[in-house]
Amino acid sequence: MTKQEIIDNIKRKRSFLCVGLDTDIQKIPPHLLQEEDPVFAFNKAIVDATAKYCVAYKPNLAFYESLGVSGMMAFEKTVAYIRKHYPDQFIIADAKRGDIGNTSELYARSFFEHTNVDAVTVAPYMGEDSVKPFLAYGGWVILLALTSNRGAHDFQLTQDAEGVRLFEKVLIKSQEWASDQQMMYVVGATQGKMFLEIRKHVPYHFLLVPGVGAQGGSLEEVCRYGMNEQCGLLVNSSRSIIYADNTESFAETAGDEARKIQEEMNVYLKV
Amino acid sequence: MTKQEIIDNIKRKRSFLCVGLDTDIQKIPPHLLQEEDPVFAFNKAIVDATAKYCVAYKPNLAFYESLGVSGMMAFEKTVAYIRKHYPDQFIIADAKRGDIGNTSELYARSFFEHTNVDAVTVAPYMGEDSVKPFLAYGGWVILLALTSNRGAHDFQLTQDAEGVRLFEKVLIKSQEWASDQQMMYVVGATQGKMFLEIRKHVPYHFLLVPGVGAQGGSLEEVCRYGMNEQCGLLVNSSRSIIYADNTESFAETAGDEARKIQEEMNVYLKV
Repeated sequence: MTKQEIIDNIKRKRSFLCVGLDTDIQKIPPHLLQEEDPVFAFNKAIVDATAKYCVAYKPNLAFYESLGVSGMMAFEKTVAYIRKHYPDQFIIADAKRGDIGNTSELYARSFFEHTNVDAVTVAPYMGEDSVKPFLAYGGWVILLALTSNRGAHDFQLTQDAEGVRLFEKVLIKSQEWASDQQMMYVVGATQGKMFLEIRKHVPYHFLLVPGVGAQGGSLEEVCRYGMNEQCGLLVNSSRSIIYADNTESFAETAGDEARKIQEEMNVYLKV
Repeated sequence: MTKQEIIDNIKRKRSFLCVGLDTDIQKIPPHLLQEEDPVFAFNKAIVDATAKYCVAYKPNLAFYESLGVSGMMAFEKTVAYIRKHYPDQFIIADAKRGDIGNTSELYARSFFEHTNVDAVTVAPYMGEDSVKPFLAYGGWVILLALTSNRGAHDFQLTQDAEGVRLFEKVLIKSQEWASDQQMMYVVGATQGKMFLEIRKHVPYHFLLVPGVGAQGGSLEEVCRYGMNEQCGLLVNSSRSIIYADNTESFAETAGDEARKIQEEMNVYLKV
């Protein structure tokens, strides 16, 4: 999916919501456990209920891998289901991968060829040759820049001798590898005014913003400091949507929660 | 496995070799493709031929994930096979994971509970709460410090205002999270004299050293600059052992290659 197509979808749906499919079998409604594939059954119902209010889905691989082979099957079926029934959705494999070149090449093959997602999240620590193989497949790389967690402060804010912080160095250096047509950055919703610092380096890029909802980030603040003229944001919410209700009406409630966020987004959207 | 047990195995076997099971279905001997699970058949033969010359195995998850569900089954079967038949081997899931706390918790559960490996490689970019969940399971964390690839120079060598480089900051900071009884560091064999810098910060830790062989690192140099009084090294070799021969005698040849490295290690070992 091109950047322009993402922007068009945002304009049409009046939403820049990404629904995080962090599906934990220990948290899904108990009645689903009778299903042959409870995780896929949950995802399918959540997707059907939320698709009209969002423009992207982000399954986090940890949740699927933790179930072993059956989890990976649920992941692949979920991506295939979204692809078939909601082809206008941008699908992000939240995998935070990054390895030496020949290994990143295999991860890239896995996500872009085997599973056919639009984007993969990648950790920058190992540098250029760990990132480039993902780009070679023509897919999107969403590089970790300034994350939403407490540990973000351990290394990401370290200043070099010229006062450039590590996350800034990631933003600057990685623009040598790809443009805003193929790269986005992860910036946590908990980062507040730091979005202004981010936008100095990447005024036109899309930012993937986790951390609204359960992690305490504010949508209003993210929009005030992080939005650009083409929106430039994909704001992710996982737990506050998908686990809003643990009864048989879980999907309906998830749809309601997604709609509420979409309505708030509609107010902030300037495009 | 405790640090002392690793040291004892090294002394007994006169080897600190880790065999990297980077099994690529496109590179294994063609006759194996008739097997029901070619990747597992290859790994089993490689393990049987090399176990007496090494103290650790390191399957890199990328190779298994790139095959989807069947690859993950081969990974799990391989770990179970080593556990059962060679219980003195240290098993490292080379996954380079790292995510926010609740997600790292799931990766930890996946590797330490579901698959039952001894150690997981973890990327440090997201800081403390991305690493600690792995430690909570009592397993080993092997944190990326100074990697073997060209891109290592992009961020890992960045100096802060006091001249401390990012990889040094990782070494310093992470010692607040765990001791040398539960943490090791990845340092590429291509780093030469940089091992002296590493050892200033972590004199007693084990280092996992990839990059000997196909990536061009020298075992002699790694030992000269990186070895400590308890050896303190697990040197990984993958391609130069497992793909040394593409015929029906591939396992025998792999065993020979592993033995040659073990014999060289025996010369350098001071314990």
